[in-house]
Amino acid sequence: MDEIRLIEVKEDILADNNRLADELRTRLKEKGTLLINIMSSPGSGKTSLILKTIDALGEDIRLGVIEADIESKVDAEKVSLRGVPVVQIRTGGFCHLDANMVNQGLEAMEQHTVDVLMIENVGNLVCPAEFDTGAHKNVMILSVPEGDDKPLKYPLMFSVCDVLLINKIDYLALADFDGEALRRHVFALNPTIKIFEVSCKTGEGIPDWAAWLREQREAFVKEWS
Amino acid sequence: MDEIRLIEVKEDILADNNRLADELRTRLKEKGTLLINIMSSPGSGKTSLILKTIDALGEDIRLGVIEADIESKVDAEKVSLRGVPVVQIRTGGFCHLDANMVNQGLEAMEQHTVDVLMIENVGNLVCPAEFDTGAHKNVMILSVPEGDDKPLKYPLMFSVCDVLLINKIDYLALADFDGEALRRHVFALNPTIKIFEVSCKTGEGIPDWAAWLREQREAFVKEWS
Repeated sequence: MDEIRLIEVKEDILADNNRLADELRTRLKEKGTLLINIMSSPGSGKTSLILKTIDALGEDIRLGVIEADIESKVDAEKVSLRGVPVVQIRTGGFCHLDANMVNQGLEAMEQHTVDVLMIENVGNLVCPAEFDTGAHKNVMILSVPEGDDKPLKYPLMFSVCDVLLINKIDYLALADFDGEALRRHVFALNPTIKIFEVSCKTGEGIPDWAAWLREQREAFVKEWS
Repeated sequence: MDEIRLIEVKEDILADNNRLADELRTRLKEKGTLLINIMSSPGSGKTSLILKTIDALGEDIRLGVIEADIESKVDAEKVSLRGVPVVQIRTGGFCHLDANMVNQGLEAMEQHTVDVLMIENVGNLVCPAEFDTGAHKNVMILSVPEGDDKPLKYPLMFSVCDVLLINKIDYLALADFDGEALRRHVFALNPTIKIFEVSCKTGEGIPDWAAWLREQREAFVKEWS
């Protein structure tokens, strides 16, 4: 049967990927670069979050961004306008980043010293959850208009993430969105996940997210100094 | 390099899939079943559209639904409550439906006579665009909160579809959404695509979409009688 063959291929690929991701994670720790992988559906606000984060963190933390896009470079251009080093990876049809693609991104970023490197993964709640990028922390965005039932449909994504950002809370008044039900489903999958409510449009909640990122960076540096 | 190996595997799989999809399409035409494949990001409104379509088409057209979900059965249950035959395919981690999975769905639906069979594909703008399901018409939903730049990022999806439904137009007042820019990008990729603006919440635009579906069904029957 077709599916069985496909699964075998996938398992081989996943095992190779996990090995490379572990190597990357260790290498980056030694360099003092905290790697943050940001995942979500298309249009949930990954680029907006990155832009808001750049503004919120200020200049004492040196940032870098790896932008994954199937085809276009619109996101990379927006980030670049903020004066932050950015590498764009065109996945050319692939629906996720893997550790090898991130490794190529790191090589292209080599001339910069980066404290916190944010990856904008491909907009997809499925495959990015399966492919370890080598990140130290995985972050997902769920935007209010997508609905509160997403943990039931994409449980792996909610399980592998350290942080859930509920974005577009400025839509709450209009949306049929049960925040309590969402939290119940999410915590059932992942009891230790950290949740922040934000609006990349109004800026609400961004300072709390930025403070968390600063703490991670400090803990990371302390561990290795 | 890792990617090159992956591409080869993918090409083999795609070639096999295309053959099976063509067989399916012909077989369904002979049976008089119009197969409609509905694709979108997670949370754009696929299930809501299917429910609204069931209500709008009434009982003179016999409907059926194939629901793809990674894990849960919430969508299938919602459809089933409408009294329409529904088959659920749990893709178990796969981020798209392929022709083989649809074929299995059809076998499970065999005891029903179905005029229009709607597939709710996995919520994803990437892989579902690459895997032909055997559908006669491909339909995508883009919801207003996702933004007007999606054709730049997911061009293949917009290229392979016969219809684009712009959903959640009740959010237009709140959203920073340039409908003209969207249309320009979409028509550059796909000059013959049919666009409907709808709101599955208020019902606006649903009659036009339902009328189009009726026309397709009539043309389909005429062609084979």
